[in-house]
Formats: sequence, C-alpha cells, structure tokens
Amino acid sequence: MDKIASWFPSSILRPESLSFSKENKLYETKYFTQTLDHFNYQPQSYKTFQQRYLINSKHWGGAQKKSPIFVYTGNEGNIEWFAQNTGFMFETAPQFKALLVFIEHRYYGKSIPYGGLKKVAYSNSTTLGYLSSTQALADYASLIINLKKNLTAEDSPVIVLGGSYGGMLAAWFRLKYPHVALGALASSAPILNFEDIVSSYSFNNIITQDFKSASENCYKVIKGSWSQLEKTTKQKGGLELLRKSFRICKNYINVDYLEGWLQTAYVYTAMTDYPTPSNFLNPLPAYPVKQMCKAIDDPTTGNNTFAKLYGAANIYYNYSGTATCNDLADNSDPHDLGGWQWQACTEMILPTDGNNEESIFPVSRENYTDRARYCNYAYGVEPRPNWITTEFGGHDIKRVLRRFGSNIIFFNGLRDPWSGGGVLKSISKSLIAIVAKDGAHHVDLRFSDKDDPEWLKDIRKKEIKIITKWLKEYYQDLSM
Amino acid sequence: MDKIASWFPSSILRPESLSFSKENKLYETKYFTQTLDHFNYQPQSYKTFQQRYLINSKHWGGAQKKSPIFVYTGNEGNIEWFAQNTGFMFETAPQFKALLVFIEHRYYGKSIPYGGLKKVAYSNSTTLGYLSSTQALADYASLIINLKKNLTAEDSPVIVLGGSYGGMLAAWFRLKYPHVALGALASSAPILNFEDIVSSYSFNNIITQDFKSASENCYKVIKGSWSQLEKTTKQKGGLELLRKSFRICKNYINVDYLEGWLQTAYVYTAMTDYPTPSNFLNPLPAYPVKQMCKAIDDPTTGNNTFAKLYGAANIYYNYSGTATCNDLADNSDPHDLGGWQWQACTEMILPTDGNNEESIFPVSRENYTDRARYCNYAYGVEPRPNWITTEFGGHDIKRVLRRFGSNIIFFNGLRDPWSGGGVLKSISKSLIAIVAKDGAHHVDLRFSDKDDPEWLKDIRKKEIKIITKWLKEYYQDLSM
Repeated sequence: MDKIASWFPSSILRPESLSFSKENKLYETKYFTQTLDHFNYQPQSYKTFQQRYLINSKHWGGAQKKSPIFVYTGNEGNIEWFAQNTGFMFETAPQFKALLVFIEHRYYGKSIPYGGLKKVAYSNSTTLGYLSSTQALADYASLIINLKKNLTAEDSPVIVLGGSYGGMLAAWFRLKYPHVALGALASSAPILNFEDIVSSYSFNNIITQDFKSASENCYKVIKGSWSQLEKTTKQKGGLELLRKSFRICKNYINVDYLEGWLQTAYVYTAMTDYPTPSNFLNPLPAYPVKQMCKAIDDPTTGNNTFAKLYGAANIYYNYSGTATCNDLADNSDPHDLGGWQWQACTEMILPTDGNNEESIFPVSRENYTDRARYCNYAYGVEPRPNWITTEFGGHDIKRVLRRFGSNIIFFNGLRDPWSGGGVLKSISKSLIAIVAKDGAHHVDLRFSDKDDPEWLKDIRKKEIKIITKWLKEYYQDLSM
Repeated sequence: MDKIASWFPSSILRPESLSFSKENKLYETKYFTQTLDHFNYQPQSYKTFQQRYLINSKHWGGAQKKSPIFVYTGNEGNIEWFAQNTGFMFETAPQFKALLVFIEHRYYGKSIPYGGLKKVAYSNSTTLGYLSSTQALADYASLIINLKKNLTAEDSPVIVLGGSYGGMLAAWFRLKYPHVALGALASSAPILNFEDIVSSYSFNNIITQDFKSASENCYKVIKGSWSQLEKTTKQKGGLELLRKSFRICKNYINVDYLEGWLQTAYVYTAMTDYPTPSNFLNPLPAYPVKQMCKAIDDPTTGNNTFAKLYGAANIYYNYSGTATCNDLADNSDPHDLGGWQWQACTEMILPTDGNNEESIFPVSRENYTDRARYCNYAYGVEPRPNWITTEFGGHDIKRVLRRFGSNIIFFNGLRDPWSGGGVLKSISKSLIAIVAKDGAHHVDLRFSDKDDPEWLKDIRKKEIKIITKWLKEYYQDLSM
C-alpha cells in the first residue's frame, strides 16, 4: 500500500529494475476470462477481461493427493512484483507440496478491462467504476473455483496469502469466502485503519517513533527541517540554494514537492525498515532508518540541515549511487500502482494524515473535505468513506469475531506505520495475531536471507506451524 | 419463494385481500435513502432510491439498555405481507424487549428504484440489473448501521430473521455481515438448492410424498390424471368438457395452462400445509393436503377424475367459496412477487424441476437450456447458474462451516418441498438445524394459534432459547 501515491496528487516513486534473476523459473503466466461486474446484471456487466495469474506447480503434490494450493491475493500493482517479493510462498512450497498461484488485481499490471487498454479503462469514472475491493474478491473466488475444477482439484485446500492491501484482501477473503479459502495469512493488513477505529495519528506516530528510536537528534533535525525549508523558500535565492543542496535535476522546484519528496523517503524507509538489504520499493541497506539517521547525525555535516537531509534522502533514492540528480517531478510508476489513487478516492479512505504535536512531519494541511474535493476534480467521483466498515466491519473486531470465523493469521511488524491499523491481539484460538517488535511491512512474506534475525526465522516457523495445523484439521474433516 | 412464478411464464396466483385486522397497530412505515449499486463506482451507481421499512418500537427496551433489534430480511414481495405472516417477531418482542424492523427487498413493494416507477425499473435488463441478492444484503447492512446510529443504538445486538428466500438472505447475512448481525433465524431457507448440491428431484419428491402419505389413492389419481387431461384435450369436445369440469371462466383454455393451474394448487398447498387454518397465499383449512386428498378420495365422485381434481383444486383456489369460476389466465400478483422471475433468470437458478418416475407430476419438459432461452427472450439476460455457490458456498457445507461461523438456526419442515434444499443437520454447536417432521414452509415464523400442535410450540420455544443464549453471550462479551 502506497500511502503517498494513494493520496498526494504527485506520486513520487523511483523506477526500479524488475529484472529478477529467478524470474523465469518462478512461474508461468496464464490468463483467466473474468466477469466485469459480479454483482449486477446489466448488459455491460457481462463484459469480460483477461485476468493474469502466475502459477508454479513445481512442488505440487497434485489433485489426487489433495495437496494444497497457496494463492496470493494480488494487491494494487503488477503481480510479478508481488510474486518476486513473496519468497515465503516459494520457500514453503516444497514442504507443503503446494501449488502456487498469484492472482493479479483487476485494473493493475496486465489485468486491464476494456481489451487491456489502460488508456480506455482509466479514462473516467464510468470505465473505472468496476475497480473495487469487492469485485476483486469475487474475481479471486471465481478464478480459484474455476482453476480447481479444471485441475480436478476440488478437494485441495486453498490458503490465501497477501501483504498490505493484499493482506486485507486475504483476511477479507477468508471471512467472506470460507467455502473457497481454508485460511489466510494476512500480513501487514491495516483492516482497522478505517473511520475512527484507530487514531488517525497512528501512522505518522509510528514513523516518528521509528526515527526517534534510532536517534533522538535525528528526529529533532527532521522535525525542525520543515520550517527551515519553508523559510528558505521565501528568501531571495532560497530556491536556488535548495536546488543545489538536494541536487535537483531541473530548475522546476517547489517547496511542496520537495517536502513531499522527503516525506516519501521517510515513510517508505520506515515501511521497508527490513533487517537485511532489500529492494522492494528501492534498493536499501539493512535497517535503513538507522542508516538515514546515521547520515543525519553525521558530524562532518555540522549544522548544515540540508546536507543532512540530502544524505538521508540519498539512502532511499540513491543507495545504488547511480543517480546524478533528483527529479522531484518524476511520477514514473514502475510497479503500476496508479490505480490506487482511484481506490483511495472511492472506498479506501484510510485516515493516516493526522499529525499531532510530536509528529516528525509538518502539520497536515489535508483533511477529508480536501480529499473529497480532489477526488471530484480528478475523477468526478465521491468517496464512500463508510463503505469498507459496512462491508467488512472493523469496529469492535474482537467482540464480533471471537465467536465467528477462524483460520486467519494477522502478522504485523511494529516498525511498519501500517501496523497501527492492524490486528495486534489475537481474537480467538484460530484468529491469531503475530507481532514483531522489530518488523516492518510484510517482512515475514519476503525471501529469507542468511542474515535474517532469529525473531524473523521464528515468526516464519510459527506461521508454517499454524498453516500445518489448519491443513491437518482439514484432512481430518475431509476423511470423516 | 414462488416456485411456479419463478419459472413458468404464466404466474398463476389468486388475489387475496391484504386487509389485516391488526395492520394499523403492527408497525409504522418509514423510508431509507439507499444506494443503487454498492459494489461499483460508476456515476449511475450513486443514484438512490427510497427503501421502505416497517418498524415497531412498542416493546423495545431502548438504546440505553442495549435492547435487541430483530430485523426481518425481506424477500421477494411486499414487505407488509411478510410482516403480517411473521407473528413470531411480534409475539416474542415483549420478552426480548426487541425493536422490530422489517426491511423491504429492493425492487419489490414500494422499494422501487427509478423514482418508485415500477414501469421504468422493470423495463429492461439495464434498469433491472441492480436487482440481485448481494445488493439486497448490502442494502440491509447499510440500513441497519444507519438506523442504529440514528437511534444511538450501536450496542444493541441485531438478530436477523427471514423465511424462504428471506431465510436464505438471513443466513447469508449472518455469514457475510457478522459485524452487523449477531445471529440469524433462517426459516425454510433452501440455501443448498443450487447446482447439484441436492438432487433436482427433491422438490417434487417431497410433494409426491406429502400426497402419498395423505392417501396412496390420492397420489395415484393425481399421477394418472395428466395423461387423461392430455388425452381429453385431443378428443373432439374435450376442451369443452375440461372447461365445464373445472368451471373455467372463459372459453380460453389450453391444457398447459390447466396443468399449470393444477400444479400450482398442489405445490402451494404442500408448501403451506400448516396445522391450522391459514391465509398465506390463499385461505386454506388446517392440513390442506389432507383436505385435498379427502376431496379426491370422495366416493361420491366415483370414477370421475376431473370432478375429483376439481374438488381438490377448489380447496386451494376457492376455500372461501366466493369464486364462481376459475380464470386460468389470471396473472394478478397481489403480493408483488413479479421480480422473482428476473431473479430466477439471473442468479436464483434452483433446479427443482426434475421429475423421476415416482413423481406425482408429469415428466418435466423444461431444462436449463430452456430456462436460459426464456430468460434471453424475456429480459435479454443470461443466467449465471454458478454465481450463488461462488458467492455464498453450499457445497460441503458441513465441512466448510463446522469450524467457521456461528449463531444460525436453520429451521425446516419436512412437508415443505423446499426442505430438500435446506440444512437439515446441525453443522456445529451454534449452527443448528431444527427439523419438524410435520412442518411446512416457515411455519415457525407464523402467528401462533390456540390449536397449534405441541411440536410447533416446542420448536418456537427452542428457537427462543437459542436466541436468548446468543444475546446472553453478547452481553457478557460486551461487558468484558
């Protein structure tokens, strides 16, 4: 989930190579003919589109053995990117003899309605109207049921897995389609980040805490920098000074863009504060927040705040050291996340923009009215801020689900700003919260690394153990 | 649910007075502004319509006391009719201190989109497209959440109740919206009557059995009558003989209509084979199947099959004795059930037309292809026969739900032809099947009668006891 892209008009994301050494071996690509609107019977609802899914049957025990099927419930981007960042499935497939399937979310990647023509599909609210979470869940149900039928694998249990918005979809899928999925591993799924269920400050508070815990000075420098940036921009020659300090490529510079560019770096670095070097959004070192704060605390930059900020931003934007200048207006979208802006304008109204006094960020100028105005301007659409809780709940989740539902793991890493909207306490014996104090955004789903800390190894073991239990129960029930 | 109207092009239902002595006291009528399409963000999805609901707060303990709310999830007809036939809610309201709400299903009664103009709303598949079960469930969620908010009754637990298709909606509502409803009483809800989950013969087999158990001769007479009718119609003067025998009003007579008219009488009499006199579809005596067979077995009609059939049909069509002749072409629709035909052409594909050798009915000439052809002709719509099981499940329900979900009562009366598609065995400790050997279609929900048999009184007591337990648990959980 892409907080900034979801909401700030300018989505600032750096391109990243999609090349992946294991790519060709990881999966086969297939397509499924999907219904455009599952909940409506107007003639145009019957239109179809080609939905992409990736499949790996290398380790599958087969239909006869009723071996399980692990399905990744794709989120807001190219499914290949998610597959390549979900090593957990590839690494556990052999022991589970699992078939792996990664389903791309409608309107992303190559799963574009209107003949695959993104320009048409994204042209207005009439063509985008079918992009919604409920339609996506129904897509997954239809595809899985059909796939199992084609494989004569009706008795193979399905476990759904997902991270971030994909984790929300995985959890909701188990809740809404228990007849299709036996269980769900919902990693870093902020299903409670709606309405007033959790504080709208939680997201930024966690980022604040991440930096504070790395270094109090680091936090103070960043917190103090916003007014300094704004002061400088108003001074004569100030913009030129900023342009030079941050090695901004073009003459085009605007303090809002610069602040957005810095915020993006802090937010995403906090989200992907992984214990080993990674390349999810951008190439990053291990524990990159610490590295950012090291740059800020660097005594060689003395009192030069902008040099310090530049050093920090460089960790996020240029860890590989190949960039010669920074393009603030860059709105390339290598992972094809653009549709999230529509989702954030319709139903995905996650209040994460609150900044209290302690926040590392400047006081938020945005509020719900601004968002509604932007959405009307951008798409001619009016958000439905209460829809997600109407459809999926969230309020009093412990009371609602303690005697209802089963077989969901909610993983959250507490360094992840999204963890504030996650399920952090177990609801029942089989609706289980797993919390990693030092974990970041769906770190459990990533490929393992020889340098993984023990806590991360333990969490993956725990998840495997729980899924094993679900499967065991399933086979017992089946044989009854 | 209206088997014949759902499928036979000519819906033959007799008008019945809606006047009801208690009507004025039973409820107040209100309207809620409802969203036309919950799952889609096209501009036209934002259109609204006025959804009618009936409310009775006479016995409600109030929001402060967190007293419960009983909600009837309206089915395919005028909600007043269902309210007037759901005495269970009125009679249990005092002891539960319950607020009563009856929500009308979209596109029925007075809850018509397109400005309430039925002619417009029903004009074609573009305007009818929004008539679906999933939209109806989302309507109920939106209305209930809004109503509770307006009453500051967020902590009042909601129990949903419904019979027939309304019972299916109640069960599905608890499964899909556990955050809105604490429990469901799903009476005579054939949620398994889809695809091949149960035998397509079950519906007609149960009717066959109903008549057989009343009298073997009665069964034989009816079973033998179809060929006799068809033979007669081909003979010279045969139609005139049939017209006279069945006191058909007009000269217009056709053996298909006559057979449909007779089948309707047998089907609905079996469905409403209540132990006391009733007036659900038509005024009927207690145990009307027995009465029909009595007419057939009547020795005074000797070997005159048509006189026997006429006597039987008269029980259903003219128990009040006011009709002077029978209008086979009558397609009046006093309970406003017309929309079911659309639902049966889109998603409500309940295979109930199978007739095996033993069946009391003639061999069925219809099959799925015929239905699809009819639906295309009538509405230009193609059925989605797999949608209901995709969205709501049904296959292997015991395995799927034994460790998932809670707080549903599935009531079925085994004289009811729909019971063949019902949940007849308990799934878990809190997904409970209650079966009445001598019960008919949602008999438990009807107003009690001084002559009610003991088994019916016991069933209602059992249902009350179970609901009491759910509420007790809820209040305990709430105080934790």
